[in-house]
Amino acid sequence: MSFRLTKYMPVFDWGRTYNSEALSNDLIAAVIVTIMLIPQSLAYALLAGLPPEAGIYASIVPIILYAIFGTSRALAVGPVAVVSLMTAAAIGQIAETGTMGYAVAALTLAFLSGAILLVMGVFRLGFLANFLSHPVIAGFITASGILIAASQLKHILGISANGHSLIDLLWTLVQNLGNTNIITVLIGASATAFLFWVRKGLKPKLLSMGLGPKLADVATKAGPVAAVLVTTLVTWALGLDGWGVAVVGSVPQSLPPLTMPSFDPDLIRQLFIPALLISVIGFVESISVAQTLAAKKRQRINPDQELIGLGAANLGAAFTGGYPVTGGFSRSVVNYDAGAETPAAGAFTAIGLAIAALALTPLVYFLPKATLAATIIVAVLSLVDFSILKKTWGYSRADFFAVTATILLTLGFGVETGVSAGVILSIFLHLYKTSRPHVAEVGLVSGTHHFRNVLRHKVETDDTLLTLRVDESLYFVNARFLEDLIQDRTAKGSPVRNVVLMCSAINEIDFSALESLEVINRRLTEMEIGLHLSEVKGPVMDRLRKSHLLQDLNGRIFLSQYDAWQALIQAEQQPE
Amino acid sequence: MSFRLTKYMPVFDWGRTYNSEALSNDLIAAVIVTIMLIPQSLAYALLAGLPPEAGIYASIVPIILYAIFGTSRALAVGPVAVVSLMTAAAIGQIAETGTMGYAVAALTLAFLSGAILLVMGVFRLGFLANFLSHPVIAGFITASGILIAASQLKHILGISANGHSLIDLLWTLVQNLGNTNIITVLIGASATAFLFWVRKGLKPKLLSMGLGPKLADVATKAGPVAAVLVTTLVTWALGLDGWGVAVVGSVPQSLPPLTMPSFDPDLIRQLFIPALLISVIGFVESISVAQTLAAKKRQRINPDQELIGLGAANLGAAFTGGYPVTGGFSRSVVNYDAGAETPAAGAFTAIGLAIAALALTPLVYFLPKATLAATIIVAVLSLVDFSILKKTWGYSRADFFAVTATILLTLGFGVETGVSAGVILSIFLHLYKTSRPHVAEVGLVSGTHHFRNVLRHKVETDDTLLTLRVDESLYFVNARFLEDLIQDRTAKGSPVRNVVLMCSAINEIDFSALESLEVINRRLTEMEIGLHLSEVKGPVMDRLRKSHLLQDLNGRIFLSQYDAWQALIQAEQQPE
Repeated sequence: MSFRLTKYMPVFDWGRTYNSEALSNDLIAAVIVTIMLIPQSLAYALLAGLPPEAGIYASIVPIILYAIFGTSRALAVGPVAVVSLMTAAAIGQIAETGTMGYAVAALTLAFLSGAILLVMGVFRLGFLANFLSHPVIAGFITASGILIAASQLKHILGISANGHSLIDLLWTLVQNLGNTNIITVLIGASATAFLFWVRKGLKPKLLSMGLGPKLADVATKAGPVAAVLVTTLVTWALGLDGWGVAVVGSVPQSLPPLTMPSFDPDLIRQLFIPALLISVIGFVESISVAQTLAAKKRQRINPDQELIGLGAANLGAAFTGGYPVTGGFSRSVVNYDAGAETPAAGAFTAIGLAIAALALTPLVYFLPKATLAATIIVAVLSLVDFSILKKTWGYSRADFFAVTATILLTLGFGVETGVSAGVILSIFLHLYKTSRPHVAEVGLVSGTHHFRNVLRHKVETDDTLLTLRVDESLYFVNARFLEDLIQDRTAKGSPVRNVVLMCSAINEIDFSALESLEVINRRLTEMEIGLHLSEVKGPVMDRLRKSHLLQDLNGRIFLSQYDAWQALIQAEQQPE
Repeated sequence: MSFRLTKYMPVFDWGRTYNSEALSNDLIAAVIVTIMLIPQSLAYALLAGLPPEAGIYASIVPIILYAIFGTSRALAVGPVAVVSLMTAAAIGQIAETGTMGYAVAALTLAFLSGAILLVMGVFRLGFLANFLSHPVIAGFITASGILIAASQLKHILGISANGHSLIDLLWTLVQNLGNTNIITVLIGASATAFLFWVRKGLKPKLLSMGLGPKLADVATKAGPVAAVLVTTLVTWALGLDGWGVAVVGSVPQSLPPLTMPSFDPDLIRQLFIPALLISVIGFVESISVAQTLAAKKRQRINPDQELIGLGAANLGAAFTGGYPVTGGFSRSVVNYDAGAETPAAGAFTAIGLAIAALALTPLVYFLPKATLAATIIVAVLSLVDFSILKKTWGYSRADFFAVTATILLTLGFGVETGVSAGVILSIFLHLYKTSRPHVAEVGLVSGTHHFRNVLRHKVETDDTLLTLRVDESLYFVNARFLEDLIQDRTAKGSPVRNVVLMCSAINEIDFSALESLEVINRRLTEMEIGLHLSEVKGPVMDRLRKSHLLQDLNGRIFLSQYDAWQALIQAEQQPE
């Protein structure tokens, strides 16, 4: 139990102080989560285009590995809706659902995703997840929710449909509408209606009946289990599978099998970008949940160690018949609310699911796929939230533009295009904004030493002195902007004899900007105009001292803008 | 001559005041530039893998179109070294040199490049060129110079070699070394040595002989013409072409022909990215030269109109047997130094070249390709400048890293990979730097109202008050950084009761950062810690007023950090 081991395996941290109170809390949470996870795992496997047992398998070994390597005490790892959809989108392009190739591609995707997460963790690249802006994530999740719900409509109607964009999905659905199975629709529609009622109507009712809010919550979460039980029983009793109702069918009674991902270079090349997107999206979803839950107990999450935990979980999924997994929002919240104290709760959940895989799988033979689709639809519609459009419209048009593009491109071209375009667009918009920074011409507020924007305040100015405050770091994207600006402001006929750059908001001057300053200095020198700097920050000044600019500068460096004002105005006034 | 016309056709601006003095100056400059351009145009066509006349044609109509639409008075447009290399790299992958397909691909590349430049000009997208940082450009030009020189060695040795990376070039060269033609080597080596001497030794000599510096410069620039004349005469007189010396051969005696680029969608798809890179690189080279020359006379360049001028020039090249062109450094400097006053000098140069194309082409039949290669090698080695490595190493490691990667990738994988990687890397490094901004904990400098970094200055602090000055705009890439930082600094056991964010260096708070501030506020509220902002800038405050943050904030907004200090320290001290 060396220092290194504790660092990379947080289990040794919480494991040392584990006691019987924590044990009983963890056990209770595990039972509740297990019951909730059985239908959810089956449903998400269906969404990913995989056989139902893949969902159960993906919840067993990954949970245990995360318990050993992860830092969150409440996070529950396993298949989640968005990652399942992304899995279907990635593999759907290279293999047919139901084939051996499809299952192997899913294992390979989990393997690649695990490897990428591990490498990101070891090299501390967790910050890469920050390249997804909040509005892009919100837009992507909303659009994914719609896509997922649309993809499940076929199961509710008992027909086939496919496609990775909303239009493809709906179009193939409409084409096959004639084959609708009316009994399937009855089961699917009533399950959906029931689950919506459980979500919206049951909880207030239970609360008004005097049930505690936590218990009411657990009862609400048991809704899908009830729907599964009732529709399975009805289907079995009435032999509805003989009437065309698609059922889950026989699921092997087995612990997770030992499986091997494929190491075919062609397959790896095809799956690498999808695996990267799945890793980053999965990590963002997981870390958000983990941080929210940790903050409630003033616990700390280590993002780089989280990458290792999730990486290990995905590698586990790859070798035990699963598919890409991550820390899920709903399962983690249920785990937390049910009182889980340590990752041991996850391990107990894994045991519960292993028992289910061994003993309970024959019971789901008659479970209609329409019921699973109903649980998915009701779950994901809570992800759909267009309020981000209104919020960003009011606050920032650039963010609004990014979120709108992400939603439209995800719906129109699928998850991979949508999220990639969102990332590229937010980076581009940010660079674009900083390429035309806010520059204020400032003057002295009378009676003070303060300098303010001449357009916003009544200030003293002097025709021979041009003072510009650039409200942005100077770097290659905006370097030429400043050259142009100063060339404009000192063009033929201007009375300016001194230019002062007030640098209070300049946090960095990169090499391109340094060269631009040198060009500006050279041009102003030719025009016999002085160039001065004021209020340069410590770190920026340290950097400038390593360059030639300070020697070459035709003017001076002033500690404060007021010093510059006094020195330059007096120098101009003396000769007259 | 409406307002719009003058705006889009600067020719009407300078044309109105054209007089006989300007005419005579322009004519002299045109004669000098024409003499220099004849061998240069032939040589660059050779570099681009095109027949020699393509270089002449590419200098005629494009110059005239630029004279009409461009804003620089001294810029000379035509084939340049780097763009010729990029043309060879782009077309070499899809057609064999010397075939019809190759020539048509070159026309198509010019057409696409012209269209891209025009679109960028009309939509005012000139700022896209700023995404190339100075070090990336410097590294790219240096590596291109080496690649170009290496690609010309085969002509000096009289053997064949090809490839787009330095290793490929040198390797194929070594493999064919056995076929070296000794007479070609003699011509090539002596031409190279002569041209180097002209550049390094002749000018000082002429100056010491009492020649004026301008005249000495012109004489030096005539070196390639002398080399061409002498080696052509020797080859013709001794019949060296019969001894295996590769000569230019027969060049059609013709004005630029009317040609059509291909509109094949497949070809356009293949050439689009290369055309984009050529457009941006060409634009950057051209605008740098134009601005340098304009600044000397306090003239103005309009970058968006320059895009239109260069776009028109490239479209002209596409329809008159040329290939992509841009404003060249050496030809523009010669034009400027020779006294060109207006773009009319360019038009006269075009006439000179047209006469050459009609009358002089038979004279270059015996011109050895080795001589042309020598002129290229000597010209491009002046582009090679590794000092950028030393300069960036001293000033900024990120810039050093970007320039090193650009050089190595350009040499190792060719121009397209090199420049693309350089752009992506600089953007990534910039985002990375801003993702971990400099954050100073500040305290009060005794006896003043100033707050400074506690690590750099002796300041007063208070355990219950944590004041952080974030030296970076807050946006999605660093939003979570601040969340983590504040969570760390207020973790269990800390005595902090108030956190103040001093916002003097925050130029923007985007939607992601706004949400992070809301999360921070919520978490601090749960821990009963106050969150306050001070010195928020006008534009940032305007934006925040549109959000919920100001209502939700558990603390206050202070105009100055000193106000915050007084209010919060006193509030803490009163109850005690």
